[in-house]
Amino acid sequence: MTLRLRLKKNADRRLKAGHLWLYSNEIDTDATPLRGFEPGAQAIVEAANGKPMGAAYVNPHSLICARIVSRDPDIRLDRSLLVHRLNQALGLRQRLFRKPFYRLVHGEGDLLPGLVVDRFGDVLVVQLNTLGMDRMRGEVIDALNKVIEPRAIVLRGDSAGRRLEQLAADVEVVQGTLDGPVALEENGVHFLAPVLEGQKTGWFFDHRVNRAWLNPLVEGRRVLDVFSYLGGWGVQAAAHGASSVTCIDSSAPALEAVSENAALNGVGDRVTTREGDAFEQLAALKAEGEQFDVVVVDPPAFIRKRKDIPNGERAYARLNREAIRLLGRDGLLVSASCSMHLANDRLVDIVRGAARHQDRHAQLIFNGHQGPDHPIHPAIPETAYLKTLGVRIFRD
Amino acid sequence: MTLRLRLKKNADRRLKAGHLWLYSNEIDTDATPLRGFEPGAQAIVEAANGKPMGAAYVNPHSLICARIVSRDPDIRLDRSLLVHRLNQALGLRQRLFRKPFYRLVHGEGDLLPGLVVDRFGDVLVVQLNTLGMDRMRGEVIDALNKVIEPRAIVLRGDSAGRRLEQLAADVEVVQGTLDGPVALEENGVHFLAPVLEGQKTGWFFDHRVNRAWLNPLVEGRRVLDVFSYLGGWGVQAAAHGASSVTCIDSSAPALEAVSENAALNGVGDRVTTREGDAFEQLAALKAEGEQFDVVVVDPPAFIRKRKDIPNGERAYARLNREAIRLLGRDGLLVSASCSMHLANDRLVDIVRGAARHQDRHAQLIFNGHQGPDHPIHPAIPETAYLKTLGVRIFRD
Repeated sequence: MTLRLRLKKNADRRLKAGHLWLYSNEIDTDATPLRGFEPGAQAIVEAANGKPMGAAYVNPHSLICARIVSRDPDIRLDRSLLVHRLNQALGLRQRLFRKPFYRLVHGEGDLLPGLVVDRFGDVLVVQLNTLGMDRMRGEVIDALNKVIEPRAIVLRGDSAGRRLEQLAADVEVVQGTLDGPVALEENGVHFLAPVLEGQKTGWFFDHRVNRAWLNPLVEGRRVLDVFSYLGGWGVQAAAHGASSVTCIDSSAPALEAVSENAALNGVGDRVTTREGDAFEQLAALKAEGEQFDVVVVDPPAFIRKRKDIPNGERAYARLNREAIRLLGRDGLLVSASCSMHLANDRLVDIVRGAARHQDRHAQLIFNGHQGPDHPIHPAIPETAYLKTLGVRIFRD
Repeated sequence: MTLRLRLKKNADRRLKAGHLWLYSNEIDTDATPLRGFEPGAQAIVEAANGKPMGAAYVNPHSLICARIVSRDPDIRLDRSLLVHRLNQALGLRQRLFRKPFYRLVHGEGDLLPGLVVDRFGDVLVVQLNTLGMDRMRGEVIDALNKVIEPRAIVLRGDSAGRRLEQLAADVEVVQGTLDGPVALEENGVHFLAPVLEGQKTGWFFDHRVNRAWLNPLVEGRRVLDVFSYLGGWGVQAAAHGASSVTCIDSSAPALEAVSENAALNGVGDRVTTREGDAFEQLAALKAEGEQFDVVVVDPPAFIRKRKDIPNGERAYARLNREAIRLLGRDGLLVSASCSMHLANDRLVDIVRGAARHQDRHAQLIFNGHQGPDHPIHPAIPETAYLKTLGVRIFRD
């Protein structure tokens, strides 16, 4: 028997535009009570007039109570659909990249709601971020083996999405073995990423394009990388000729990895690390009279929920002010935000205000976004989250 | 005697944020009547309480009645300030580019309101787009000679900005001589640009970064370049290995230049041209059963004034629909707009709708803007005008 999920009147507009999410308050629960669905069940989604809109998987206990897996109501999310979508996703990446280091699946952006797969050569790191996708765990692993034939597969259960859907937070190597961090290459620079213990999947592939923009501009420059994590920005800058690089992070293991990654590229002598709170370290550098030609601020999301916007914006403003204070006469600020709730234009205005605050002029010369292996679903604004500004800061 | 221009109460907020424009309805004309200013006169701008805000040049007959040239009220726009700002602008470009082909001055974005200078090696093409800057013509030429020592300087008087300020529309070679189109190099590809007769200054440097993004993705692909002008996209694609390129433009001289530019790069055999209205040519290609792997639509501004937004958006929608109809099974649409009045998000939504209209899915993999030699003034949204989307189009 095929389950059906009926929408309220006029609740189909977003879906018609291509969006994949249904909120629980959009369901006609008289016609199709959500309590009638097993968590993870698949169903045909119907408009209020009964017209089928597509196929979805259901989580009756979540605010987003269903996610569309196909606009064809007769399709089901199964191994066959997973293989099809993985091949579509792989096709794009193979067209974009020569080497197999990228986000292979970006959830909704690749029409696979709840699934994230990062590829480090023959090691795959997988997030099953929704209950519906978690129920497909076996099929996902099968499909990945069919399409990619990985040596090892890691499941990173410790994602924010899984917490929201009340799923277990285990990290497991479900296929093959791993004996340490995993190698990757980005913009010609080599890194080792701790895919089991590191942030998210271990590496942030989304900034590849933004770092590629910065790399040719750092030769002979003093670079500061704030919230450096493994040195994605800083070590790449050193490898591209920066005269000196300072990496700040609060995590000792991350900074150890920075040093290892610097050594791996033969630039260990030009990269130093400072452990501690970013704001404290910025103040300390100022007190020490340090100046930089390029400052990169790429913090974790300061705004995780809509209600955090005012506080979060103040934090971004403060961070950018402190960063600008450390720039020399004609400096370059690289200011990123991965907060989905911070609009690109707001970040521009925050940087503008931070520069004005110190009577400096900001010239916006780059406005980057997430890389192409993190495709944006144009009907789902939530899939566009990353912005990176390249801003020349000078006294006019 | 120093002239003063007094703002109405609360009319200084935009200026404090860094904006450079004053609108005539923001002036306290009881205190400082606009008719008291000679066109092009320089004045100190004062807040309602008399506090000096900066120095500006005035056009009493224009909606934007004054433009700030410095936040220091004691500064005047003269040869010395022009030299200072030109050196600032040149410093940025020399840091960004190895070869001297770029926009050297981008008006307000370089704190030189009304001045645009494009550089083709030792040939400069200048627009003096406001009356205030036009009055500085001699000083601008002097300053350019001091900073750059060009062989030739062209004044392109035929800009939309000058029409608004009722300035003469002459095109003149004011220094040196030109005996034909001027050479430039972009992303390793060679072009000749007709700087005297071509659109705007003869070449659109603003798309360099967007073309640089596309170039590595076209090898072996069939590319269609709609509104090709001189072949900036199409000839570059051919030079980067596209198997075939079709350029559509309504201008016969532009298409002759496409062929010349293709020949210049040894790819004449892979570039064909079609003269005519873009929409008619797209329909004709469809009727002929043609298909492409990559379609670039880079039209002139369909929205020149705010009131044109509804009609303009319909034109962008139609253009993108027709472009998508010509894409093969898994195609790449490159959709640009230089309309300042079309927000980036609106273009994303237009492309989304155009794809949905044909039951195809759009995956946004690139969101580019104007290149870094067209810096954006973060307090002046009008200085950010260009957006380019890279969109994978497929049937899900």
